[in-house]
Amino acid sequence: MDDRVQTLTQLTTPAVVIDLGKVERNIRRHQDYADRHGLKLRPHIKTHKLPQIAAMQLRGGAIGVTCQKVSEAEAMVAGTPEIKDVLITYNILGAEKLDRLAALAKKVKLSAVADNETVVAGLSQRFATEPAPLSVLVECDTGAHRCGVATPEDAAALAQVIAESPGLVFGGLMTYPPPDGAATVQSFMTRAKALIEAKGIAVPVITSGGTPSMAKAGDAPVTTEYRAGTYVYNDRSLVARGACGWDDCALTVLATVVSVPSANRAIIDAGSKTLTSDLLGLPDYGHVLGRDDIRIDQLSEEHGRLVSDGPIGLEVGDKIRIVPNHVCVVSNMVDQVYVTAADEANAAGKKWDVWPVVARGRIT
Amino acid sequence: MDDRVQTLTQLTTPAVVIDLGKVERNIRRHQDYADRHGLKLRPHIKTHKLPQIAAMQLRGGAIGVTCQKVSEAEAMVAGTPEIKDVLITYNILGAEKLDRLAALAKKVKLSAVADNETVVAGLSQRFATEPAPLSVLVECDTGAHRCGVATPEDAAALAQVIAESPGLVFGGLMTYPPPDGAATVQSFMTRAKALIEAKGIAVPVITSGGTPSMAKAGDAPVTTEYRAGTYVYNDRSLVARGACGWDDCALTVLATVVSVPSANRAIIDAGSKTLTSDLLGLPDYGHVLGRDDIRIDQLSEEHGRLVSDGPIGLEVGDKIRIVPNHVCVVSNMVDQVYVTAADEANAAGKKWDVWPVVARGRIT
Repeated sequence: MDDRVQTLTQLTTPAVVIDLGKVERNIRRHQDYADRHGLKLRPHIKTHKLPQIAAMQLRGGAIGVTCQKVSEAEAMVAGTPEIKDVLITYNILGAEKLDRLAALAKKVKLSAVADNETVVAGLSQRFATEPAPLSVLVECDTGAHRCGVATPEDAAALAQVIAESPGLVFGGLMTYPPPDGAATVQSFMTRAKALIEAKGIAVPVITSGGTPSMAKAGDAPVTTEYRAGTYVYNDRSLVARGACGWDDCALTVLATVVSVPSANRAIIDAGSKTLTSDLLGLPDYGHVLGRDDIRIDQLSEEHGRLVSDGPIGLEVGDKIRIVPNHVCVVSNMVDQVYVTAADEANAAGKKWDVWPVVARGRIT
Repeated sequence: MDDRVQTLTQLTTPAVVIDLGKVERNIRRHQDYADRHGLKLRPHIKTHKLPQIAAMQLRGGAIGVTCQKVSEAEAMVAGTPEIKDVLITYNILGAEKLDRLAALAKKVKLSAVADNETVVAGLSQRFATEPAPLSVLVECDTGAHRCGVATPEDAAALAQVIAESPGLVFGGLMTYPPPDGAATVQSFMTRAKALIEAKGIAVPVITSGGTPSMAKAGDAPVTTEYRAGTYVYNDRSLVARGACGWDDCALTVLATVVSVPSANRAIIDAGSKTLTSDLLGLPDYGHVLGRDDIRIDQLSEEHGRLVSDGPIGLEVGDKIRIVPNHVCVVSNMVDQVYVTAADEANAAGKKWDVWPVVARGRIT
């Protein structure tokens, strides 16, 4: 793999290409929104997994970053002196992960979450002998029905357990709401906050998240902090929701047509190993820029099938650019991405750099 | 990440674990089938991406390996002196890939495929100045409607172009049929072979593939060679097709329950970054061994949601083992797999080794 600067037309495909001009614009727009609504922004690094872009987000005004797994946080902190404050929004279990968490807590201001007493007990046991306590937030289920305590009463009870646990301090409340869940976030968190404060325990942070909900984050003013990831690149799912336009999509997959077996079908060299099978409710596997008539109706691991009701109008060797359905998972498929510092990424002769995706594949 | 031998219960999750006893059994069973039907077996390495398992397949009687991309072949050849014969079943385009292909051809007996004249012209131009010609097979569409020439007449015409191209020799016919496509393979290939031989050109190889079709491969006796991948591990899609049982599934994902938010719901630490979103026609995202009642009804990147109509019966910290829907894509998600040399992978105290997945993420 050539790691020198290349022009777009020279890139070996499939290639994930990122327009840093659009990234900058997306960061600014969402930071402005957060600032206007008095929300601190704590971007989720899962979308890019790149220290360089985390640093851009922090320079833009973010107060820290969100990671989902300990190993993600390790990779990001190792590569980014700008990262000084990390929230890991995950129930962390097991001696090996707890040791790594303790090591990480010596390098940055670190917080984690819990939605059950088993996780709290493990964190407490590990951090009781550490020089500084770990901040632990209670994860609340505000309708996504994934993790989280089910009621404000349960949240208050677990907050008290945390506050009374050696080695821990209660850090606040965290939720990952369903899209358009602002009203539920507001009512759940307002009630939980009151119950916890009634116990004499302060609630320093109430953090919500998700790019799809962010435009309505102001409707949950009890929230103090917001975690969004996808906004930094945007993707087809967000275009479909009306959250942005194609021109706001900073990450595209460059692919080459390798076969045109019939008049209305073409095959490209990007399959599920690049685009993934994530549909996110969409009818097919990605949007071909400039070709609204084309559907990517089938992926195998290394092939994508493009079909059109009319002539496909592509020749073997042609290059196309695809906006993926779900951009975060695409970042996880590749060892490196190609970036340009300027907008207009598809201009002829534009020069590119190569960045390794250092937090890719960090699942533990 | 700890790369020393560990017991199963000590593994940090999520972890992809492989039972080499089952792998050996699967290799033997399919090699025996191929031998009985006079088929040469050329396993597709996409399923495991591991030099060690390719070597096991070759020791078991395979004549060589199949790779989908040049970079996969590079990774496998670099790690496996046993690999001396590689077929890349892909239309290869572009100077950079052609240079890598030429370099690879100096190390092993190499073949590639083409389904159009543009690809043939590129291969010919690059190999015309090489010391030895490249063997190129014609890819035929026998009903999968992905790549491939559409008719036996088109196959014969392209075979002639290859045979007349400097730097190339015609290597035969290749297809990736739809499941249960043996009858179509037989009729297409018989006709194409006759047409090509009528031009005075020999057809040394007719290669078909796919584990789902392999039990019927004997129904297409015109075939000389078979490319199968998934058989080496098996997966839920093959169990659903009746091709194997749970006990034949050599790869499982070990996951930890991190939350039990309600009586019939549990959350595990394996999501789409490990299991992927591949459904392959199945109703949910994997099979929990020993728990037919559980559905993995929702994945996000780092969470899997388990639901049951009855009590979920799991506690935070419990470990479960999952047979994924599609095993090849799971191999592509992880940097390493945990392997044991013996059967009964879940025996207490069983020791494990760690193998890096060297051909993971090789998309070019």
